[in-house]
Amino acid sequence: MRHICHGVCQGYTGCSGSVRKKGAGGEDTTRIEDIGGEFALIHRLTSRKEIPGVLKGVGDDCAVLRYDDEFDLLITTDLLLEGTHFRLDWSTPAQIGNKAMESNVSDIAAMGGIPRYAFVSVAFTGDFSVEQADELYAGMNKSCDRHGVSIVGGDTTKGALLTLNILIVGMVEKGTALLRCGALCGDLVAVTGSLGKSEAGLQALQNGLEGNIQPHLEPTARTEWGRLLRPYANSMIDVSDGLAGDIIHICDESNLGVEIDGDAIPLFETAMEIAARLGHDPLDYALSGGEDFELLFTFSKSKTDLIQKTGVPFTVIGKITEATRLLRVKRRAVPLKGGYDHFF
Amino acid sequence: MRHICHGVCQGYTGCSGSVRKKGAGGEDTTRIEDIGGEFALIHRLTSRKEIPGVLKGVGDDCAVLRYDDEFDLLITTDLLLEGTHFRLDWSTPAQIGNKAMESNVSDIAAMGGIPRYAFVSVAFTGDFSVEQADELYAGMNKSCDRHGVSIVGGDTTKGALLTLNILIVGMVEKGTALLRCGALCGDLVAVTGSLGKSEAGLQALQNGLEGNIQPHLEPTARTEWGRLLRPYANSMIDVSDGLAGDIIHICDESNLGVEIDGDAIPLFETAMEIAARLGHDPLDYALSGGEDFELLFTFSKSKTDLIQKTGVPFTVIGKITEATRLLRVKRRAVPLKGGYDHFF
Repeated sequence: MRHICHGVCQGYTGCSGSVRKKGAGGEDTTRIEDIGGEFALIHRLTSRKEIPGVLKGVGDDCAVLRYDDEFDLLITTDLLLEGTHFRLDWSTPAQIGNKAMESNVSDIAAMGGIPRYAFVSVAFTGDFSVEQADELYAGMNKSCDRHGVSIVGGDTTKGALLTLNILIVGMVEKGTALLRCGALCGDLVAVTGSLGKSEAGLQALQNGLEGNIQPHLEPTARTEWGRLLRPYANSMIDVSDGLAGDIIHICDESNLGVEIDGDAIPLFETAMEIAARLGHDPLDYALSGGEDFELLFTFSKSKTDLIQKTGVPFTVIGKITEATRLLRVKRRAVPLKGGYDHFF
Repeated sequence: MRHICHGVCQGYTGCSGSVRKKGAGGEDTTRIEDIGGEFALIHRLTSRKEIPGVLKGVGDDCAVLRYDDEFDLLITTDLLLEGTHFRLDWSTPAQIGNKAMESNVSDIAAMGGIPRYAFVSVAFTGDFSVEQADELYAGMNKSCDRHGVSIVGGDTTKGALLTLNILIVGMVEKGTALLRCGALCGDLVAVTGSLGKSEAGLQALQNGLEGNIQPHLEPTARTEWGRLLRPYANSMIDVSDGLAGDIIHICDESNLGVEIDGDAIPLFETAMEIAARLGHDPLDYALSGGEDFELLFTFSKSKTDLIQKTGVPFTVIGKITEATRLLRVKRRAVPLKGGYDHFF
């Protein structure tokens, strides 16, 4: 069902635990938390059977559909809600529009694809002004211009909360979409850029600290890097849920394990500053912070030179193994656990 | 931007008028109502320039994209919010899921297309149970099975209100999508089935009256009829905003006028019963009630026999004229005004 899960909800609203309750007919009902949260729910609700024309359905960054002799079609969608995913007192409408578009484009990037068309559904609140609506669209259009995307359809309505759903249609050379399931045992695991920057910005906002919050408010999808990595990587995902959760998606879909060297994970400078001031471990910002929109990919060691020649800044942080999933930090190995879940 | 506008919001929440207010910088801000509401906003926010690969963008039921030598791609999306578009005390989760899917499928039907793939974004509230989520998806899947649609992707998150965004990808034989802009002067105007049934059901729910509320809670998109009409109609739209608003969309996009014979409009039997009990004019339910999901189309009189042979039940209710837009009721002609607007 859900192609990616942006760990953007933490911090904006407390995910208040609901209590087990009786249904209308008096029967016991089950909380989403009780079955294991968001990903268990997605598995429960969605069919993974083969569908004609669908090359890859639920379970990756994008759905992959048959298109023509040259290209496959990539489709991804994200639903973003005021209070859950963004706050109007922390972000301008332009920043919200921009980030919403970038987070979707990032899913196309994670498959090595070219984003093309956007469909934007918006629920405006009663007191949202025309000027704010203009700004929201200006933010989306800024992102669209950056990535060569055109808004070609959508829906508008009125609601109690500002609500945005964006769907992006992209394309990728036939049969070459970088899937989560493509990792091979022995592959090196690498990540572009640096991590923890979005969580650091969120922590700064929440705690009233000074710091570089720009990457949190105005992230950039790595479409160009995705295109450059496509010929050489075996699997790829965007880091939207935190590194830990996202590498586990690759492991799950590839039926393999991983060993991550925590000390090798490239941390954003501000993440270290903010974490130090708050007494946090900056590694946690990278592992479970989410929304960094860097690319996490695996590749055969023999391709290292070719990847270096692309000019994409990347860091090797581990390797794909048979089954066990370990995170080694300062020579201490601990079981690797998943990232953020919207239902816990 | 917005392909269709489902007049489903009336009655669920009062559209509280916001007051003109100062922006954060002290500047005057403009209410969406001040510029003419939803459709004016869509015109303001969206580009209607030509985009490569896009045969029809903003301004019709679906966007039409180039696909292959045989088919064009149709894409439509709708955002539905608890409180604005549905109420959990009036509808079961299955009914909400079913209606959300049907309302999207209806846009594909209105172009004469074949619906294929659905992308579903859902925000669940904290107290939404797994059983309710199962029911919501069962309702969507019932509709999918009816129309040959597969859910192939989406997004789930947590929110303060149950929120659903559905996007459907369909296809239609190359160059044959029935657009709103295809009406010709002299065309007959016809509608399938009968109208006012959804508004009658809503009125019954709001006023605690007995009556057939099934068509309001469980509408059915007319995909089969759309396919049968496609070879013979010149323009088509689904009746989702109320007949008055929807025929005006055809007139606007075709740069033509219309004369509607109000007395010829086929009214659903329950609509007449409920309206009589409430002292309403049942014609208003048809003209501005919305959500009937019947097909409104125009065709050359010479095609009448061919359309009759399809077996689609339809009623001729007027004709396309040069410019003036008139509604004649009992020999009294009044200017035809638009349908429901979410922002008034």
